[in-house]
Amino acid sequence: MSTLDTSTTGLQALLSPSTVRSTVLPVVRQRVSALEPTLARICSYHLGFIDERGDPSSAGSGKLTRAALMMAAAEGVGLRPEDVRAPAAALELMHNSTLIHDDIIDADELRRGSPAAWKVFGVGLAILAGDALQALGLQMVVDDPGAGRAEISSVFAEALRLVLAGQSREFTVRLGSGAGIGEYDRIVEKKTSALLECALVTPALRAGRPEHILAALRGAGRNLGLAFQILNDVEDIWGDPAVTGKPVRGDIRRRNPSFPVLAALSADSLAGERLRGLWHADGTTAAYLQEMADLVEESGGRRMAEQVSRSHLDSALEHLGRADLFPAATVELTTLFGRIVHRTS
Amino acid sequence: MSTLDTSTTGLQALLSPSTVRSTVLPVVRQRVSALEPTLARICSYHLGFIDERGDPSSAGSGKLTRAALMMAAAEGVGLRPEDVRAPAAALELMHNSTLIHDDIIDADELRRGSPAAWKVFGVGLAILAGDALQALGLQMVVDDPGAGRAEISSVFAEALRLVLAGQSREFTVRLGSGAGIGEYDRIVEKKTSALLECALVTPALRAGRPEHILAALRGAGRNLGLAFQILNDVEDIWGDPAVTGKPVRGDIRRRNPSFPVLAALSADSLAGERLRGLWHADGTTAAYLQEMADLVEESGGRRMAEQVSRSHLDSALEHLGRADLFPAATVELTTLFGRIVHRTS
Repeated sequence: MSTLDTSTTGLQALLSPSTVRSTVLPVVRQRVSALEPTLARICSYHLGFIDERGDPSSAGSGKLTRAALMMAAAEGVGLRPEDVRAPAAALELMHNSTLIHDDIIDADELRRGSPAAWKVFGVGLAILAGDALQALGLQMVVDDPGAGRAEISSVFAEALRLVLAGQSREFTVRLGSGAGIGEYDRIVEKKTSALLECALVTPALRAGRPEHILAALRGAGRNLGLAFQILNDVEDIWGDPAVTGKPVRGDIRRRNPSFPVLAALSADSLAGERLRGLWHADGTTAAYLQEMADLVEESGGRRMAEQVSRSHLDSALEHLGRADLFPAATVELTTLFGRIVHRTS
Repeated sequence: MSTLDTSTTGLQALLSPSTVRSTVLPVVRQRVSALEPTLARICSYHLGFIDERGDPSSAGSGKLTRAALMMAAAEGVGLRPEDVRAPAAALELMHNSTLIHDDIIDADELRRGSPAAWKVFGVGLAILAGDALQALGLQMVVDDPGAGRAEISSVFAEALRLVLAGQSREFTVRLGSGAGIGEYDRIVEKKTSALLECALVTPALRAGRPEHILAALRGAGRNLGLAFQILNDVEDIWGDPAVTGKPVRGDIRRRNPSFPVLAALSADSLAGERLRGLWHADGTTAAYLQEMADLVEESGGRRMAEQVSRSHLDSALEHLGRADLFPAATVELTTLFGRIVHRTS
């Protein structure tokens, strides 16, 4: 089981992004189009299948990160990508349900460079569309006749519960004052890592792998989520809006305690002190946000974020190494982890 | 199986509202209080466990209609109320998730006579709280180890999908023009009947009853939902806000096509014509709403609603009679159906 290598199995070809898309998207399209017509339209718009007028769109459905992870992990336990087609599609639907609601909650007007669903269809229908994707995702897992159905359904439901708990905690912390890195980690392990863990663990459940393998995969997903989210926070401040598809510095504008800011706020320096003053006042002009960004960098917040993200990525790979997957799949997942964290798919 | 009667089984005592409450509410309280603290607080507030300040409240959690139906149906197939404790609690949670979101969507400021969750905690957190109850409800069913777990999970997921489809359709119809009674029925069969069918069918699935029994119970739930919703529409126009817990005439104010209005709008009379004029204009003063209500009554909309509701209740009982339940439970359910439709619990 541990002697296969990439060159002999040809697994890398199997797992190209286009394979992930062609395995998952037809199911997603079909299930979403079978929703009540208005909900189908909103969800199809959010997923980039159609534009605001209902015409076919090439906007794209995001990177299908979670589906790609699940399929690579499936190979690692000797399954084919299509053996996890239903849960992979379901996970993407559940993830997108949280995005639709998240954009309402954060009043984010852009998603992947286009107007968010609530901007186009209104808050009421966007709430229902998010609900419908959430329900559809869970329904697909519950009705999937493959092995490990009960365990997989349970893991999906728990992952969703954790995402919602993380989002709520983040929202509450934002409203209040001071949160530290420990609190940040607990939020991200829920809101970001839970679905990644779910992606990695599902194939192992389908293949009946023992608990220590599941634990290794969960550890990989947890650290991957932290590595990703921390660099994502860096990009929110210094990234290119053309790449992120979002207005720059939304986190600072909203006083959302992102990792670089939390690191900088606790810096024992003049820059840190000046940042604390600006953070707790309510300036939101571009110049004000620029000054805060500069102070975060000056206080070492950006450097520390990049270091800690790197260290979580290392931990993720270490856990992955203990999951006893086919080596070709481990290679595949190693590449994928790097792409996810650095957003270079 | 068909010779038991109420006097010998004592089932009526078992199924008092206080038995339903004492079987279901402790589970609901416990599961809700284990949510992320902010979500726990919002859901506990919505469910009437605590007040706006977080102090214990006696506001009450509604009538637990769906749990009561499920428990009575459980008796009908030879199960004890506690055999369906988890799905009964789960169904109430799912129902309440739709109420929390519905109040946001409709901008309804009152729920059971108290400020709606979104008025107290804001739209963002109320969206997450509704999501959390929806996820928790499905999780409880998925994790319930009782017989028929897969089938019951599937029925719950499908019921939720239908409720959302019905709500979306209603919202869309409201935005557009004209809908007929046929469209009304299709909406109500989804948004109202789906969870009632789920309540009645779940115990039969747990007890492994055959398809013709399930079909009879679904028919009972479908007609019960129609009977209830139509009289509920009547109450929205002519009911006592102290009983409904909602401002009077919300449906007319929003131009929500309720049954009495739909019936009156199609009336071939002077009153009907005058109503059509007022309905398509945008008046919302109390006098304007009063005039519309009077015209609905004058056009026979109220009388027809009461007749059609009665006829659906008769159909519901007819279907119930074909479900081959223990007679004592059929008696119990007959009483319960009447109470649900006439809101006299």
